[in-house]
Amino acid sequence: MLIIMRQQATDEEIRAVIEEVQRLGHSAHNIPGSTRTAIGVTGNNGPIDRNLIESLPGVVQTMRVTKPYKLVSRETKPEDTTVDVGGVQIGGKDVVVIAGPCSVESREQIVTAAQQVKEAGGRMLRGGAFKPRTSPYAFQGLGEQALRWLVEARAETGLPFVTEVLDQESAVLAEQYADMLQIGARNMQNYVLLSQVARSHKPILLKRGPAATLEELLNAAEYLLAGGNYRVVLCERGIRSFSDFSRNTMDLNVIPAVKELSHLPILTDPSHGTGKRGMVLPLALASIAAGCDGVMVEMHPHPEHAMSDGYQSLYPQQLKRLIESVDRVAQAVSRALSR
Amino acid sequence: MLIIMRQQATDEEIRAVIEEVQRLGHSAHNIPGSTRTAIGVTGNNGPIDRNLIESLPGVVQTMRVTKPYKLVSRETKPEDTTVDVGGVQIGGKDVVVIAGPCSVESREQIVTAAQQVKEAGGRMLRGGAFKPRTSPYAFQGLGEQALRWLVEARAETGLPFVTEVLDQESAVLAEQYADMLQIGARNMQNYVLLSQVARSHKPILLKRGPAATLEELLNAAEYLLAGGNYRVVLCERGIRSFSDFSRNTMDLNVIPAVKELSHLPILTDPSHGTGKRGMVLPLALASIAAGCDGVMVEMHPHPEHAMSDGYQSLYPQQLKRLIESVDRVAQAVSRALSR
Amino acid sequence: MLIIMRQQATDEEIRAVIEEVQRLGHSAHNIPGSTRTAIGVTGNNGPIDRNLIESLPGVVQTMRVTKPYKLVSRETKPEDTTVDVGGVQIGGKDVVVIAGPCSVESREQIVTAAQQVKEAGGRMLRGGAFKPRTSPYAFQGLGEQALRWLVEARAETGLPFVTEVLDQESAVLAEQYADMLQIGARNMQNYVLLSQVARSHKPILLKRGPAATLEELLNAAEYLLAGGNYRVVLCERGIRSFSDFSRNTMDLNVIPAVKELSHLPILTDPSHGTGKRGMVLPLALASIAAGCDGVMVEMHPHPEHAMSDGYQSLYPQQLKRLIESVDRVAQAVSRALSR
Amino acid sequence: MLIIMRQQATDEEIRAVIEEVQRLGHSAHNIPGSTRTAIGVTGNNGPIDRNLIESLPGVVQTMRVTKPYKLVSRETKPEDTTVDVGGVQIGGKDVVVIAGPCSVESREQIVTAAQQVKEAGGRMLRGGAFKPRTSPYAFQGLGEQALRWLVEARAETGLPFVTEVLDQESAVLAEQYADMLQIGARNMQNYVLLSQVARSHKPILLKRGPAATLEELLNAAEYLLAGGNYRVVLCERGIRSFSDFSRNTMDLNVIPAVKELSHLPILTDPSHGTGKRGMVLPLALASIAAGCDGVMVEMHPHPEHAMSDGYQSLYPQQLKRLIESVDRVAQAVSRALSR
Repeated sequence: MLIIMRQQATDEEIRAVIEEVQRLGHSAHNIPGSTRTAIGVTGNNGPIDRNLIESLPGVVQTMRVTKPYKLVSRETKPEDTTVDVGGVQIGGKDVVVIAGPCSVESREQIVTAAQQVKEAGGRMLRGGAFKPRTSPYAFQGLGEQALRWLVEARAETGLPFVTEVLDQESAVLAEQYADMLQIGARNMQNYVLLSQVARSHKPILLKRGPAATLEELLNAAEYLLAGGNYRVVLCERGIRSFSDFSRNTMDLNVIPAVKELSHLPILTDPSHGTGKRGMVLPLALASIAAGCDGVMVEMHPHPEHAMSDGYQSLYPQQLKRLIESVDRVAQAVSRALSR
Repeated sequence: MLIIMRQQATDEEIRAVIEEVQRLGHSAHNIPGSTRTAIGVTGNNGPIDRNLIESLPGVVQTMRVTKPYKLVSRETKPEDTTVDVGGVQIGGKDVVVIAGPCSVESREQIVTAAQQVKEAGGRMLRGGAFKPRTSPYAFQGLGEQALRWLVEARAETGLPFVTEVLDQESAVLAEQYADMLQIGARNMQNYVLLSQVARSHKPILLKRGPAATLEELLNAAEYLLAGGNYRVVLCERGIRSFSDFSRNTMDLNVIPAVKELSHLPILTDPSHGTGKRGMVLPLALASIAAGCDGVMVEMHPHPEHAMSDGYQSLYPQQLKRLIESVDRVAQAVSRALSR
Repeated sequence: MLIIMRQQATDEEIRAVIEEVQRLGHSAHNIPGSTRTAIGVTGNNGPIDRNLIESLPGVVQTMRVTKPYKLVSRETKPEDTTVDVGGVQIGGKDVVVIAGPCSVESREQIVTAAQQVKEAGGRMLRGGAFKPRTSPYAFQGLGEQALRWLVEARAETGLPFVTEVLDQESAVLAEQYADMLQIGARNMQNYVLLSQVARSHKPILLKRGPAATLEELLNAAEYLLAGGNYRVVLCERGIRSFSDFSRNTMDLNVIPAVKELSHLPILTDPSHGTGKRGMVLPLALASIAAGCDGVMVEMHPHPEHAMSDGYQSLYPQQLKRLIESVDRVAQAVSRALSR
Repeated sequence: MLIIMRQQATDEEIRAVIEEVQRLGHSAHNIPGSTRTAIGVTGNNGPIDRNLIESLPGVVQTMRVTKPYKLVSRETKPEDTTVDVGGVQIGGKDVVVIAGPCSVESREQIVTAAQQVKEAGGRMLRGGAFKPRTSPYAFQGLGEQALRWLVEARAETGLPFVTEVLDQESAVLAEQYADMLQIGARNMQNYVLLSQVARSHKPILLKRGPAATLEELLNAAEYLLAGGNYRVVLCERGIRSFSDFSRNTMDLNVIPAVKELSHLPILTDPSHGTGKRGMVLPLALASIAAGCDGVMVEMHPHPEHAMSDGYQSLYPQQLKRLIESVDRVAQAVSRALSR
């Protein structure tokens, strides 16, 4: 349920409504808008008495949210959400490029990569410290050491960074170091992990699972918002299909679909979405043209020596060209590269 | 097999090689390039004696084509193919917008549509005369009458038109009226039909089947070239996936994949690829950004009264905006709208 | 629309209703049942006056058929359909095994294969004379010669045979020789071909396309019944999915789904559905256990020398074991092997 | 790497080899066979010196395992694995039926269900205490209270039970109460959870993810074996496809594929695999016919009142009929119902 407040509702009135909702055993979510505030009510504690709520001072009306997801729905919040990540805005007019290696491999590798990302025009760094690997015998990441090197890379360049977390333990660690926590595609429906990072004070990058429907993606995001973390960015990274010439099939139809149903920003990851270095540029540009809020790509100072995903990592020079092209395409759709 | 001729090979030398190949029971395909000519040899008549061929005047060498498809392969012809359709070039530097209604419904409807397409900046008209319909009880198209009205629409506007053919009979009719024949997605592996239109003198628009792999698509095109029709344009129109928020899932990864493996042009059809009017614009722009050579979209003077596919047809005003945006995105990737 | 006749309706009454329907510009389909006759009305000529029809002698009532497909629907005909193919019943209590090579390669090959099928307990022979091949350079079948050899194989063994047709020409030829015509998976939505074989006097085996939904399959069958051929058997042969350990993914869920929605028999083809010889037996048994009316499998006297699909063809000895096992599983689900 | 011991190798020799492998920084897995013992060597610590190992007393030879998964591979252990769950054998000659409600809802519900499962001939009980739900607002299970009631149901009937775990916390709890822990489809690639339950002393039921390839499934199982838990049973529960008439598409091709590549037992879950009560019986029988080692189905004393998945839950009477039919089909493929 959504409680719509008067335009001139005072802070006390808003607070009083929230307290009343909580007193009734539900969760209340303050959703400020440009003209007025709404309060989202969630919980599985049975229905709430609408007459009671509508009689409170400052309340205009209550509305049922028709979708299974509530807080992520555009019904609940018609305006686009912008998420601030260490000073970088995701979801506003400008589009963002996040780049960096699949895995952090050494201090030198990640600092060099960060400098190359910055020089190419990227606004954020990516780098894996904890790696979910298909095989138990594959390289699983360098853990906290990698996080420390990422912090050094940030210190050298000023680029905030995002890193994947796999469980409570890695989330607690990453919370101390990182600017944004990533939930990987294989954990999109790991509801325990979603509930844990919902309590984080850092923004979340939530990747769509390779077989997730749009409703499942938005419900996964709902776990985060319902748990109190409203700073969520979605990310399309390719779905499983019969197509055999690329590792995954990028589903760009999801971009306008998300924009219609939700107020959350959405990025794409054309590196995983294609699995081939030569396809990253065209699909990055396609994503921007389709209306997404930025792209995250893999770049490695020396892709041929990368410990993971080298075949889909860009060379530094290619990243530079990609970002210039992203800027041009962004302008063609009345946006711009975030600088 | 591919026979590479000397740069200065004379027409007689080329003709002599072709005759020798045919004398040996194979088909020979003349493939002129910017610097020299190649001759493609196809057929399932067993291997050919390479020494014999290489001893002919003007021959530099012979090469085995490693792909199962031969004439469509970039190995065979490294340069992009440009297909001329009634004066419109598909596959060159400029990108083309083809638009029009799903079905031709009346003289007035198609002439009005053509005028609107022209005014919006479209270069070609589409309109169905023969409709493959899932249900035997659905509207199956107006046949030859529709073709005559399309000719009138062309006369009024100068726009060449493409129309789908379903069998020998409709292909023979369309050959007399249309500028380009379309093989629909459901007929992509109708090899009898492919062999028939291979003998047509009109260029062919070949749509990818909803479950076709890239190799199947290129092999379907190979049927056309092997049959003697080299003016083939491919078209991505969405694949079947589990995704449930759009009628089909557009697979834009296929664009760079086709460009790598083949010299043929490729368009997309975001109307069928999304099945929703509101998604056509973003996916059209995404297609152009990904490197395709144009888009084909459904537009109807009055979508709400369309006899088929109204929900995915653009309003005339939307087409205009789409074409303007296509132009801007095309320029962002160093191309331009064909005018 | 469905017109339900009185139980004691006379032939004249039935004939009079049919004539009235035709006089009104619609098609009428006589659907005899065990207790009473129904008359299906199809066509896209606008609605029909129900009051007029219900006033005719012998008519109990008219019913709207809610599905897009009408004549194939179980609403229209609640009783299972049994299709007679040269004396073999498909769709009754007994389950049928159809076997034979992918392609007819020689007189000796097909006669030997037929003898082996018969000896193993198979009731019908399969063999391709016209082959739809992904590549234009692959073996395309021996055409009418193959049909003549199939007739010889039938003469030697008494086994009726089914063979695929690709177009009007092959359908006309096969009509003269074969006991059942097959529409292959790639032609399931070739509506021109469906309309042609609808006029055939031979029963039709209609294979599900690799990306066809159930509704599309039933609508394809509707083309056959609406065109006047009521002897239709469906066949599941695997769908396209991301699964990479078998050529296709057999969708056995379709069997109970078809049985619920339609009265038509359904077989499966585990040879194409798996693409691996070692998987044919388990999936054939699974199909029978799931309730299908039989299986069609590829067997070759010498799979290692087959001109097509050798890797998925059974050895004669394997066919024998398969048929024995099919019999046991059929009995476990209260059916039996057709003998 | 696999170390093959002599047939008469003594326990000391085996122990000495294991210690040497560990001393070299690798993990050693004792794999007893009917005629001789093998020792699997895993770890990502670089290659091991084969000459050194082959010189140890009792060692016949070392072998490289060619698959990315090692311990689950049939190369490593040619004989079928049988997993004992509270006295019930899974993976031997007999097939097992596991049944029970989606969620434990009350003491009475689960005890009644257990009695009904027992009476119908089931050997194990299923029941959810911790539920992974798409929506944060859906019923999430009763937790430890549910486990206690499951223990009561076991005490009343003697049926061991399996229950899903979601994280460290639920796994620790379930370890104390349950006979088998289930990893749900959405957690199949939750490698942290896999590593945690690998240390459990309870057998694991590992469900295939809805978009998991066979290699991903076997690698997920490899996490369990590499972590020291060798009692693993796989479970097919339907994949995501375009098919729209069932909630998921059961992929029975995976059964012979697993049997070829791995020694682990495999069950199917036709309740989730179809999502429709009326399809559970035919697909359960199909699974048995295809060679799986049993089925797990949802049954509820009153499906119409179930708090989750009621539409796919069997009525007690239907379960009885299912188990009788499973027995008949099992016998038809030379197996039998476990009693």
